[in-house]
Amino acid sequence: MTEEDRRFMSMALTLARRGLGNVWPNPAVGCVIVKEGRVVGRGWTQPGGRPHAEVRALAQAGEAAHGATAYVTLEPCAHYGKTPPCAMALREAGVARVVSAMEDPDPRVSGGGHAMLRDAGIDVETGLMEAEARDLQAGFLSRVTRARPWLALKLASSFDGRIATSTGESQWITGPQSRALVHAMRAEFDAVMVGGGTARADDPLLTVRSFKPLRQPLRIVASVRLDLPRKRLAGSLDVAPLWLIHGAAAPEEAKDYWRDVGAEPIEVAETVGGGLDPLALMEALAGFGLTRVFCEGGGKFAASLINAGLVDELIGFTAGMVLGADGRAGVGDMGLSALASAPRYTLVESRPIGDDLLHRWRRQSHA
Amino acid sequence: MTEEDRRFMSMALTLARRGLGNVWPNPAVGCVIVKEGRVVGRGWTQPGGRPHAEVRALAQAGEAAHGATAYVTLEPCAHYGKTPPCAMALREAGVARVVSAMEDPDPRVSGGGHAMLRDAGIDVETGLMEAEARDLQAGFLSRVTRARPWLALKLASSFDGRIATSTGESQWITGPQSRALVHAMRAEFDAVMVGGGTARADDPLLTVRSFKPLRQPLRIVASVRLDLPRKRLAGSLDVAPLWLIHGAAAPEEAKDYWRDVGAEPIEVAETVGGGLDPLALMEALAGFGLTRVFCEGGGKFAASLINAGLVDELIGFTAGMVLGADGRAGVGDMGLSALASAPRYTLVESRPIGDDLLHRWRRQSHA
Repeated sequence: MTEEDRRFMSMALTLARRGLGNVWPNPAVGCVIVKEGRVVGRGWTQPGGRPHAEVRALAQAGEAAHGATAYVTLEPCAHYGKTPPCAMALREAGVARVVSAMEDPDPRVSGGGHAMLRDAGIDVETGLMEAEARDLQAGFLSRVTRARPWLALKLASSFDGRIATSTGESQWITGPQSRALVHAMRAEFDAVMVGGGTARADDPLLTVRSFKPLRQPLRIVASVRLDLPRKRLAGSLDVAPLWLIHGAAAPEEAKDYWRDVGAEPIEVAETVGGGLDPLALMEALAGFGLTRVFCEGGGKFAASLINAGLVDELIGFTAGMVLGADGRAGVGDMGLSALASAPRYTLVESRPIGDDLLHRWRRQSHA
Repeated sequence: MTEEDRRFMSMALTLARRGLGNVWPNPAVGCVIVKEGRVVGRGWTQPGGRPHAEVRALAQAGEAAHGATAYVTLEPCAHYGKTPPCAMALREAGVARVVSAMEDPDPRVSGGGHAMLRDAGIDVETGLMEAEARDLQAGFLSRVTRARPWLALKLASSFDGRIATSTGESQWITGPQSRALVHAMRAEFDAVMVGGGTARADDPLLTVRSFKPLRQPLRIVASVRLDLPRKRLAGSLDVAPLWLIHGAAAPEEAKDYWRDVGAEPIEVAETVGGGLDPLALMEALAGFGLTRVFCEGGGKFAASLINAGLVDELIGFTAGMVLGADGRAGVGDMGLSALASAPRYTLVESRPIGDDLLHRWRRQSHA
């Protein structure tokens, strides 16, 4: 594959990114159709998951698709669902060559899309910029191959890792630029999630407010007994959906109340200790189709998710202030006996955001 | 002043840097002598503080100094001490022009050096790259104008701000590259300092070991009652001096013991609460001539220094691991009642070091 191929695949990946947060349970795919070195069609998965990227790009290309090359960030689908498969659409448009970043692990596709194209005499090349494509589609891949969503944990803290003073004051530790970036990040996830402690302390809206997103991410609160404040969260059901993950012990009155205001109570298993089982919670979310979840605390909930090995990405916003050990910790008790057993992450990005420092880390996978 | 002037001053600043940590109570000065666009002499303050940068550069220039321009990062001295003043030496060498970054606030100089040069008919220009020069000479300026050393606090912690597990395990949170950089940083400070808690927990050597420094920084342990372990610290007096800052209540036996092994017990005032008065401590260190102190914890000592407004620089090494709230906090209790009263710092640098993230912050001065 040539440098030109790489350039067009890179363009397709950039288009694919537009779908993040808007297309679950589908993958966010990008497609670029090129005829004689000129882009004749561009497409990406549309909000809600349809139309697919290839269909949009083919519609834009029209007759020009005949004999063209299509660059796709994921294997075109091969199964008949609400619409005919994209592999079929590419064939019918007369595309001569398909360059694909990776195979779709979805068992309904899984090489079938590439095979359908090859059977039609189309030249198929795969694996171009696969690492970048896997990275972009980490959420979809996680849902399909691990049966749980990709999970990012955001922590906005002081230099010494505190998220509030001892009196609970936390507005604002980080600056306006960081807060705006958090809203932009929320919009690239399917759902924003917090634990019951944070919901009780802050009764947060959890919506995207610094700009108008294509669609508001789903809001999730995990609270074993559903003992949540009933003001701002309960009063914003017209803005964004609200899922409430609770245990078997949650009172019927609470479930009824939240159902009445339009929220969705969802029961998951509890641990022996009486908290929500973090793995059961994440598997339930994948069962509903979620691919990317953005957790914003609090400390106890974050610790349980990290300890269970479920946090794929740490996103730190560090502010230039010191709050001291009597301030509130960003991550709760972990019960680690030795340094060697601490969960480890690899730095993938760091840069100043306004007066703060952003740093992102990815979980190190252990064999 | 020209772009060429800026280039030579920048060179002088680079040379000056070599003196950091080696020249207290003197400033670390750099000097470049230029004749017809060519560097004919370079000098920097030598270990111990003598000879001065100008004397070294003039010796190298020899006859070529006649009619040349001398670039100095600080006003040449004007007072007769162990040697004749540098202003006199520049005059006698026939230097035609002196470009100086800033006036020396030392009351024995304070414009007198520049005046002495001007009186001799030498063309004197001042203020070139003054901000950079103030930055480099922050330690000396702090001693002279604030009567206390410049104080940097280093914190090597997990993503969530912990410096050890709940069981006290702390070796190693950060990686070998970070630890080597910490040794290089130590060498640029006059002294390395820790509180009694860290000394009791780790009995640290506090020496520079990743390379052979020009001279080992002084070691300082602050312990109100001098109840310190008597193994590694006590057994390394041949490697580097050890000053022990204590309160009035420290037992005579302990003072005698430490004096016998070659350490220097120094008494400073206590606070009403019974700890060492952090301002009294820092003023005592300046009284002994220290200009740059590198504090490496622990949490309680760091909190007292930060709370007293004495920490000028925070140096964070963040590792990609999570230790949880039951781990040991890097900064102790601060007793802050409101977020608005938290000490604030400005980010000046951030970059990956091995697998860790280095971030440096400077204290925001309040009017």
